[in-house]
Amino acid sequence: MSALRFEILERSRATNARTGKVYTPHGAFDTPAFMPVGTRATVKGILPHLVRATGAQVVLANTYHLLLRPGPDLIERRGGLHPFMGWDGPILTDSGGYQAYSMADGNRVSEDSVVFKSIVDGSMIDLTPERAIETQNKLGADIIMALDDCPPSVDPRTFNLTRLRLAAQHAANFSAGYDHDARLTIANERTIRWLERCVKAHARPDDQALFGIVQGGTDLAKREWSAQRVCAIDLPGYAIGGVAVGEGPGDIARVVAHTAPLLPQDKPRYLMGVGYERDLVAAVRAGVDMFDCVLPTRNGRNANAFTRTGQIRLRNAAFSEDDRPIETGCDCLACDPGSHGWPTPDGRPFTRAYIRHLFLSDEMLGPILVSLHNLRHFQRLMLDIRRAIGHDDWSALDRRWPVLSVRSYDPQPSDASASPEIGDAERP
Amino acid sequence: MSALRFEILERSRATNARTGKVYTPHGAFDTPAFMPVGTRATVKGILPHLVRATGAQVVLANTYHLLLRPGPDLIERRGGLHPFMGWDGPILTDSGGYQAYSMADGNRVSEDSVVFKSIVDGSMIDLTPERAIETQNKLGADIIMALDDCPPSVDPRTFNLTRLRLAAQHAANFSAGYDHDARLTIANERTIRWLERCVKAHARPDDQALFGIVQGGTDLAKREWSAQRVCAIDLPGYAIGGVAVGEGPGDIARVVAHTAPLLPQDKPRYLMGVGYERDLVAAVRAGVDMFDCVLPTRNGRNANAFTRTGQIRLRNAAFSEDDRPIETGCDCLACDPGSHGWPTPDGRPFTRAYIRHLFLSDEMLGPILVSLHNLRHFQRLMLDIRRAIGHDDWSALDRRWPVLSVRSYDPQPSDASASPEIGDAERP
Repeated sequence: MSALRFEILERSRATNARTGKVYTPHGAFDTPAFMPVGTRATVKGILPHLVRATGAQVVLANTYHLLLRPGPDLIERRGGLHPFMGWDGPILTDSGGYQAYSMADGNRVSEDSVVFKSIVDGSMIDLTPERAIETQNKLGADIIMALDDCPPSVDPRTFNLTRLRLAAQHAANFSAGYDHDARLTIANERTIRWLERCVKAHARPDDQALFGIVQGGTDLAKREWSAQRVCAIDLPGYAIGGVAVGEGPGDIARVVAHTAPLLPQDKPRYLMGVGYERDLVAAVRAGVDMFDCVLPTRNGRNANAFTRTGQIRLRNAAFSEDDRPIETGCDCLACDPGSHGWPTPDGRPFTRAYIRHLFLSDEMLGPILVSLHNLRHFQRLMLDIRRAIGHDDWSALDRRWPVLSVRSYDPQPSDASASPEIGDAERP
Repeated sequence: MSALRFEILERSRATNARTGKVYTPHGAFDTPAFMPVGTRATVKGILPHLVRATGAQVVLANTYHLLLRPGPDLIERRGGLHPFMGWDGPILTDSGGYQAYSMADGNRVSEDSVVFKSIVDGSMIDLTPERAIETQNKLGADIIMALDDCPPSVDPRTFNLTRLRLAAQHAANFSAGYDHDARLTIANERTIRWLERCVKAHARPDDQALFGIVQGGTDLAKREWSAQRVCAIDLPGYAIGGVAVGEGPGDIARVVAHTAPLLPQDKPRYLMGVGYERDLVAAVRAGVDMFDCVLPTRNGRNANAFTRTGQIRLRNAAFSEDDRPIETGCDCLACDPGSHGWPTPDGRPFTRAYIRHLFLSDEMLGPILVSLHNLRHFQRLMLDIRRAIGHDDWSALDRRWPVLSVRSYDPQPSDASASPEIGDAERP
């Protein structure tokens, strides 16, 4: 018996895109799918039934954070993540590797494991492939991820702010003679060996689907090598990792367009930690089926609301007397509460003016309302993407989503301090 | 036409308690009623339809906070508080006087007004009775409160921590020859003159019910004098103010028991800013119909959950593997999500173990879940109180609510740092 079944429903002729359905022990979800991120077993600030009401069918939780607190044993004794966090649908957990690399200063990677310092209690955590899988077996998500060796995709010594930060985090692994290309090659090969160890360690293949992860940075030849080796191992699904970890949007699209078609047609393809609207559409056209990203909730907490024409920054004084919803025509819980049966005066929306007031007053309801809107924004995009695939009408999608044509990811009205860093905004 | 109609439904024979219904332009609410506090036009962290789902029928908002930000004119231009905050039921606003006294350092009270420094932008605010009413006319609540002169009920120079704080705040009004009793007399008399000015200034008597406030501190003779003078002015309702502003629980009960029966039988009686469960029951027995208190949401944000047997502190390690709901048998949205139609695995509750994890992880969902529970706790208490009045069976109420017999308000397991200060916990 397999833990996961993938059914392809429609195929685009003009692109590699397809619609489908992934069946798991906790129900099915439609693809292409966007998974809200519930890092610490909660989508920040949003009750599970409201996550559901945004249209989300599957959520992600982060092994790294849950490993540190409250720990996999405690969650296992509760019956696993589903009852623990009150989510009755499919759940995916990452392996913890990405955060172990990116969030912990002074981590050390070796052939056997990545060792990092707990941000909770300062203890040293030795994350082997076996431990990553054992942890995820205890968490009990429907889809689990192999541990990969995921170095920065760009040479961390190259100057810019994001890269400097990465360099500082990886300092322990850099000698004076650091060779970035050699490091990527080692990572690529190690990821295969780790995947084999993950497969061997996996104790619940009947009810948890283990996905392998293709690495290779921005080097297309390395991606090809990795895809070939990873896909030689028969697994219920495959992911593209090491994307949006320091490189620019152009590189993201180029790598994804090249790599996605190398993955098996009949298995779900998952692009990890991406991203903005046009990244998603580009990846779908390349044949990707699953996405996760913290942008809807992270930007929601910062008063940045996604709209079809771009982000707006609701703290801006321009909105102080704006009686419109975040986005006119949006059917989300914040913009159109009446349609969800919420009793509001005259069915009025929560207005931009009110939401701005909430943020200026540091009221929790501000982040809650904008997160609800943003989560729905990405689900509506996926609905329209699935429709575009079915009709093979991509120009209609572009017309309905002007944001797909804008150059900048920055919120409008623009505010330099608000523009999320690539590599920082993408993953928790 | 009157802005408010009060209907008495049942009367207790053994006590002065009664059940009733208050009709306002935005619907009716049952009495005795507990009003959740939405200080800045939001019950902290709780979407309006979920406030409604806890059983709340009327909410309070604070004039002081809304006067400073976003300002009454902005809210008036939005159509008033109801559409602004998305609450379609009755709303009550206080006058702002209490917070002007208690929250602003260096405030100065004179015959004409209380002058205080804005905590938002440092500007000096001159709050006259006329301005307090004009502000509330703009906010548009169904019930509005007169501006009262509300000095500390105990001599602020008397030593203890709460009083020291009060003394510091009121320092500008204390000369070396400060006479506390004389100050109370002045406040009592001034409150009458200010009430007359409020009545005169009130521009919307047809759709906003102005309540007068009885003062007098802990001096029963002063309370009698105040009640007589305030009630000589024909108003749709009357409040008992200056309670829970520094004095102990015994004094609260004594003052309320003496004062409530002095207010007109056929008008709703409102005890401002009180309080714990036994304070509410004692006040209901004295004939009080309306209450507000920040305890459910404030304590909820601090992981303190109210139960029928007393508060529990959900950060406590004792709950780390506790799979029970906050309170077994509770029908709230956190303890019994299934009964509200929320899809949770096997209809399981959000457990103490999960909620503890949320608080240790600084996740918003922790405060949200405990606030939802606490808000329901007080609504269930009011339901049982109304039932007790109908059957005149107060011993059944005591049996169902063991917390009414406990001595300490402290959370269990006890934690000294958690015990809310009297006079601080009561009002925002």
